[in-house]
Amino acid sequence: MYFFRNDYSEGALPQVLDALNQTNALSTVGYGLDPFCAEAASSIRRRFACPDAAVHFLMGGTQVNLTAISALLRPWEAVIAASSGHIAVHETGAVEATGHKVCTVPSGDGKLRPEQIRAVCAAHTDEHMVLPKLVYVSDSTELGTVYTRRELEALSETCRALGLALYLDGARLAVALDASDVRPEDLPALCDAFYIGGTKNGLLFGEALVVVREAWKSNFRHAVKQRGGMLAKGRLLGVQFQALLQDDLWLRSAAHANAMAARIRDGLSGLGIPVAADSPTNQLFPILPNAKYEALARGFSFEVWDRPDPEHTTVRFVTSWATTGEAVDALLDALRA
Amino acid sequence: MYFFRNDYSEGALPQVLDALNQTNALSTVGYGLDPFCAEAASSIRRRFACPDAAVHFLMGGTQVNLTAISALLRPWEAVIAASSGHIAVHETGAVEATGHKVCTVPSGDGKLRPEQIRAVCAAHTDEHMVLPKLVYVSDSTELGTVYTRRELEALSETCRALGLALYLDGARLAVALDASDVRPEDLPALCDAFYIGGTKNGLLFGEALVVVREAWKSNFRHAVKQRGGMLAKGRLLGVQFQALLQDDLWLRSAAHANAMAARIRDGLSGLGIPVAADSPTNQLFPILPNAKYEALARGFSFEVWDRPDPEHTTVRFVTSWATTGEAVDALLDALRA
Amino acid sequence: MYFFRNDYSEGALPQVLDALNQTNALSTVGYGLDPFCAEAASSIRRRFACPDAAVHFLMGGTQVNLTAISALLRPWEAVIAASSGHIAVHETGAVEATGHKVCTVPSGDGKLRPEQIRAVCAAHTDEHMVLPKLVYVSDSTELGTVYTRRELEALSETCRALGLALYLDGARLAVALDASDVRPEDLPALCDAFYIGGTKNGLLFGEALVVVREAWKSNFRHAVKQRGGMLAKGRLLGVQFQALLQDDLWLRSAAHANAMAARIRDGLSGLGIPVAADSPTNQLFPILPNAKYEALARGFSFEVWDRPDPEHTTVRFVTSWATTGEAVDALLDALRA
Amino acid sequence: MYFFRNDYSEGALPQVLDALNQTNALSTVGYGLDPFCAEAASSIRRRFACPDAAVHFLMGGTQVNLTAISALLRPWEAVIAASSGHIAVHETGAVEATGHKVCTVPSGDGKLRPEQIRAVCAAHTDEHMVLPKLVYVSDSTELGTVYTRRELEALSETCRALGLALYLDGARLAVALDASDVRPEDLPALCDAFYIGGTKNGLLFGEALVVVREAWKSNFRHAVKQRGGMLAKGRLLGVQFQALLQDDLWLRSAAHANAMAARIRDGLSGLGIPVAADSPTNQLFPILPNAKYEALARGFSFEVWDRPDPEHTTVRFVTSWATTGEAVDALLDALRA
Repeated sequence: MYFFRNDYSEGALPQVLDALNQTNALSTVGYGLDPFCAEAASSIRRRFACPDAAVHFLMGGTQVNLTAISALLRPWEAVIAASSGHIAVHETGAVEATGHKVCTVPSGDGKLRPEQIRAVCAAHTDEHMVLPKLVYVSDSTELGTVYTRRELEALSETCRALGLALYLDGARLAVALDASDVRPEDLPALCDAFYIGGTKNGLLFGEALVVVREAWKSNFRHAVKQRGGMLAKGRLLGVQFQALLQDDLWLRSAAHANAMAARIRDGLSGLGIPVAADSPTNQLFPILPNAKYEALARGFSFEVWDRPDPEHTTVRFVTSWATTGEAVDALLDALRA
Repeated sequence: MYFFRNDYSEGALPQVLDALNQTNALSTVGYGLDPFCAEAASSIRRRFACPDAAVHFLMGGTQVNLTAISALLRPWEAVIAASSGHIAVHETGAVEATGHKVCTVPSGDGKLRPEQIRAVCAAHTDEHMVLPKLVYVSDSTELGTVYTRRELEALSETCRALGLALYLDGARLAVALDASDVRPEDLPALCDAFYIGGTKNGLLFGEALVVVREAWKSNFRHAVKQRGGMLAKGRLLGVQFQALLQDDLWLRSAAHANAMAARIRDGLSGLGIPVAADSPTNQLFPILPNAKYEALARGFSFEVWDRPDPEHTTVRFVTSWATTGEAVDALLDALRA
Repeated sequence: MYFFRNDYSEGALPQVLDALNQTNALSTVGYGLDPFCAEAASSIRRRFACPDAAVHFLMGGTQVNLTAISALLRPWEAVIAASSGHIAVHETGAVEATGHKVCTVPSGDGKLRPEQIRAVCAAHTDEHMVLPKLVYVSDSTELGTVYTRRELEALSETCRALGLALYLDGARLAVALDASDVRPEDLPALCDAFYIGGTKNGLLFGEALVVVREAWKSNFRHAVKQRGGMLAKGRLLGVQFQALLQDDLWLRSAAHANAMAARIRDGLSGLGIPVAADSPTNQLFPILPNAKYEALARGFSFEVWDRPDPEHTTVRFVTSWATTGEAVDALLDALRA
Repeated sequence: MYFFRNDYSEGALPQVLDALNQTNALSTVGYGLDPFCAEAASSIRRRFACPDAAVHFLMGGTQVNLTAISALLRPWEAVIAASSGHIAVHETGAVEATGHKVCTVPSGDGKLRPEQIRAVCAAHTDEHMVLPKLVYVSDSTELGTVYTRRELEALSETCRALGLALYLDGARLAVALDASDVRPEDLPALCDAFYIGGTKNGLLFGEALVVVREAWKSNFRHAVKQRGGMLAKGRLLGVQFQALLQDDLWLRSAAHANAMAARIRDGLSGLGIPVAADSPTNQLFPILPNAKYEALARGFSFEVWDRPDPEHTTVRFVTSWATTGEAVDALLDALRA
C-alpha cells in the first residue's frame, strides 16, 4: 500500500531523527529554555532576516493558531479568513473556543484578496458587531495554491491601511516558498506573525512561530503555557528545527515533495484528468471517474475530498519528503491502467 | 554538572527511543487512529483492568488537565483542588482560561482530604456561587507525597456521595504506585478519569488519559482537537506508550527513580538535614543552610523551592529513570563535604 | 420629529408603567424569587400551554441568547443560524465569546430552511470540525418576515431527527404571532427553548425565556447569575410581564404595531415603492430614491439599512405599540410629497 | 413584616420614579446614545472631577465587573481580591467564565492591604503562573467596612509601583463616601476605573462605570454589547442617574441609610450584642443567641450570615433609603424584648 494520504504519514527525516538520537542522553533545562532552542531560534532569525523577532516552538498547527490569535486580540476583536481556511473549517472551533469570531469570505482557490478584507471591514461599522483585527492566510493554502510576493504585499498593505494584523499559517510554508517567488526574508517584512511548519516537512512534530510585531511579543510564554503548548522537554523542538534548518534541509525536502507532485500533475494532465485546484505544491486534487477512484483505492492510501457529481470523486494526493519515485511510478501506472 | 533538576531533563528511555527509530519509516494514518495507538490503548485497558475505558494520548500535563476538565464541566461548575495543586499554581490559569473556577483548600503536604471536599460543597449553597463538580488530586503530589489506597477510597466515596467527579493527575503516577499500596487496577474503580504520565517517566513526551465515566467519553476527540492537543503523527504516542508498558518498564523505571531518591533521603537523614515534605517518591525537599546550598549549586543543577528563613534555602532534588548511581554518590559526597 | 427608528424608542406601555408605580414601595426578596415573578411565570406557562417549562426573566435579547446557548452546549458544539441572524451579525460575537462557533447559511429573507440544516450537519463529519447541536431562528426575523406553523414544524422535525435543539429568538415574537398562523401553544411543542420579547413590545426592558427541554433546565439560575443577567430587583420583570400578559396586552400591542405597519405598507405599494423584504410585521424596508430619502430624513427618524445602488437607499421603518395614527399619516403624506 | 434583608428590596426613590414617569412618552435613540445618558455622564464627570473619564451605564454589578475586568486583561492576566470580595464569592465565577483567575488573599474585615498585593505579585514569578494585573477592591466592602483616603492612596501607590490597575467596585459607594473621609473627586485620582452603584442606592437598576485609564477606554462599548450589558432603552439609565445626582440625592439617600444603621448599631451596642464586623455603613452583622434570632425572624426579614458556634447565629441587617424610623424602632424593640 503506497501512501499519498498526507505529509505526516511517516516519522522524521533521517537527519532529524539522528539529531534526536545523538542528543538523547544530554541533560538540559526544560520548557524551551535550553541551548538547542536558543540556537534554532537564532538560525530562524538569521534565515528569515528578522533579528528582532521572537521565535516560539510549539507542537502543532491548531495549537499555534489558537495561542497566537488569542494572545493578540481583545475579546471583541475578530479574525478574517477564507471560508476554506484551516481555522475556519478544520480546527473544531478552536479560535472561537478562545472567544473570537472568525469572519469568513468565500474563496474558490483558498486565497484571500485585499478587496475581501476591505469589504469585511466596511461591513463592521459599530459596537453591535465584532471588530475585525487580524487577517489569517495560509501559504500554501488548504488547496495547495500559493501566494505570489506581489499578492502578499497587497494583503500586507491592505492590512496596514486598515489597522489589521497579518498572520500567516505556514503549516506548509516550505513547499509554498519552493513554488513561488516569495523568499523567507519577505515574510517578516510583510506579516506581523507567521509560523514555519515542521510537522508536514519532516519533523516528528513542531512548528516555529515567528512574532514580528512588538505588541504581540510581551508575555507570549504565558500564553503558550496557558494554552497547554509548552513542552516539558522543549529542547526536542530546538534539536529538530536546528537539524531542519541545517543546509536548508527544510527547503530541499520541500523541493523533493514538490518535484514528486509535479510528476503526478504531469501524469494527470497527460491523461486528461482535471484537477479541482491549480496547485503547484504537494497537494493535488484530481477529479476521478468513480471506477478509477475505486480501483486506485485498492492499492493506494489517500483521502476523498469531494463528490462533485454522481459519476466522479475528487481525491487528494499528497507528497512529502518521504515520497519515493517508486511510489510515484506505481501511482502513475495505476492511473494509466 | 549533575542534574537533579527534574525528571524531564533528558530525552527518552533507550527502549522508547528504539521503538521510535524502528517504526520511523512506516506509513500510518494520523491523529492517533493508527494501530500503535490502538495497541497501546489496549495494553493500558488491560494493565489497569478497565476494559470499557476510553484512552486518549496527549502531549503534556497542562494540555490533558485543561482538555479533560473543560470537557466535563458545564460553565458554572468548578473544581476543588489543594492549594498546591498543579492546576491551581503552575498552569498559568489554564483551567480558568476555559471558564472554570478552581476552589482551593490549604494543604501542607499536597494532599486533599474528604472533610475539605465536604466543607467546600457545604459553603457553595446557591446560584450566586459556582457549583463544585470535580475534585482534582495529584498522585504523587507536587510535594512528592502519595495517597494510600484507603485514602483514595475515602476521597472516591466522598465524591460519589456528593455527586462530584474524581480526577487524578498522574503526571508522576508510576512513582506513586511504586511507593504506595495503590495498584493500577484500583484507579478505574476509584476515579472517573485519570492520566498516566509518560513525560516524567521516560517518554520524549506523552500522557495517557483514561476516561472511565460514561458521560465523559462522548465526543472527547472533539475536545482534544479543539484545545490543540491532537498530534498529527499521533502514532508517536502509541509507539512510546507501547514500549513503556512492555514488561512494566514504566514501573521498573519508577522503581529506579524511587530507589535513587531513597539513597539521597537516607543520606539527608544521616546528616540530620530536615526535609520540607515527607516524600517517599522521586522528589525531595531538603532545607539546607545557605552556605551548603551555594556550595552544592556549583556542581549540581536543581531548583530552589523556598526560603523558609534568612539562613536556609529549601531546594528540590528530583531523580528519574536517567539518574545514575554515580550522580547520587557525587551528591551525597557533596552534601557530606 | 416622528420616530420610526425602532420599537424601543419610548418607555413602557401605560399599563406596565402603572404596575411599576403601584408596586414601587413594596418590599420583596430579590433576584426573581419574589411572588410577582412566580405569578408571571405561571401566566406564561398557562398562556403557552407548557405547565412543566422553566421560565426565566432576563433584561435583554443578547443576554438571553448568550446565556441560554452557552448553558446548553458543550465546548465543541456549535449553532446553526441564518447569515442575517441577530446572533450572527448584531451581538458583537457574544456567542463566540462564550466559546461557540455560529455556522451560518445564506438567507435572503431571514428564514432558515430544513435542507440548510441538513446540509450543515452533513458537512460536519468528524472531530476536526465543530459539532452542530443547536438551531437558532428568529420569529419575526431580522427582516420582518415570519414562519408559518408548517415551516416551524418542519424545522422542528428536522432538528429532532438530527439530534439538534431548536431555539427561537422571540425578540419580536408578538408581532410574528399576530401575523402568522403560529399560536402561543405551538411553541413549546416545537422548540426546546424560546424567548418572549418584552423590550420591543412595550416593557421598559425584559425578556422571558421559556425552557422546555429537561436537560436544559438544571442549574439555569447559575448560568443567569454567571453571565450577569440576574437583576437584583428581579420583581421588576415579574411586575412588567404580568401586566403585559394581562388580557393579552402583549398581543393587542403587537396587533396595533402591525396595523400601523400595514397602513404604511399599503401606502408604499400604492406609490409603487418596492420593499427589500416581504414583511407582514412591524418592520418595513422600502427602497427609496435618494432624493426622497433625504427629504424624509428631515422630518422623520429612521435607520438607513442599505445602499443597493448609487441612486437608491433602503431604509427601515419600524412601528410599535407607541406609533400613532397621526405619525403614520404624516409619513404617508411625506412619502407622497 | 419589616425588611432589613437588603438595600434592593423596594423599587426606586420617588424622585427617580418621577423622572421615569415624566420621560416615558418621549422618543429617543437607543443603546445609551440619547441625551439623558449624555447629561448624566456629564454630571458624573463634574461631580467626580474627571473631565476626561469615560462613563458607561450598565444594569447590575456582576455585569459591570465581568465586562470591565475582561475588557482590560489579556488572557493570562489575573485579578487580586480579598477572599470575601464579591467577584470571588458571589458572582458564580463570572470573572473566571471570561477566562481570568482571581487570586484571593484572606481578609477578616473585607479589606485588602498593600502588603498582600505585594506578596501575591512576589509569588507569581514566571510564565507557569498567571500574571496579576488588576486589583479589585469594594468600598464599602461586603462586610460594611470602608477604606480611609489614606488607605486607598496606599493601595493606589502600590498598584502603580507594581504596574497593576486598581478597580473599585462601588456597588455601595455612596454609603462608603458618607462614612469615610474619601471624597468623590478622590476616586478618579486613585483608581483606574470604578463604578457608582445605583441599584443599592435607590434606582430601579443601574450602575455607572467610570473608566479613567486611557488604555481601558477604547472600544469599551463593544465590550458592553458583547457581554449582554447594552440596554436597548438605554436612556432609562441616564434618566435615573440624572435624578440620583440632582442635588446630591445619592449622598443624601446614603446618609439616611447610614443614619438608620447607626441607630441600630447603637441599640446593639447598648444591649451588649457583639457584631462580626466593625461596619460604619448600612450593613450590620450582629451575633445573636439562637433564641433571639428565631424570635426576630418571625417579624423581620433579614439574612442569616453565619453560624459561628452552635449557640449563636450571625445575621445581617441592611438599611437603605427606604428604611423608615418606624421599622428601626420596631427592630430595636424586638431586640430588647
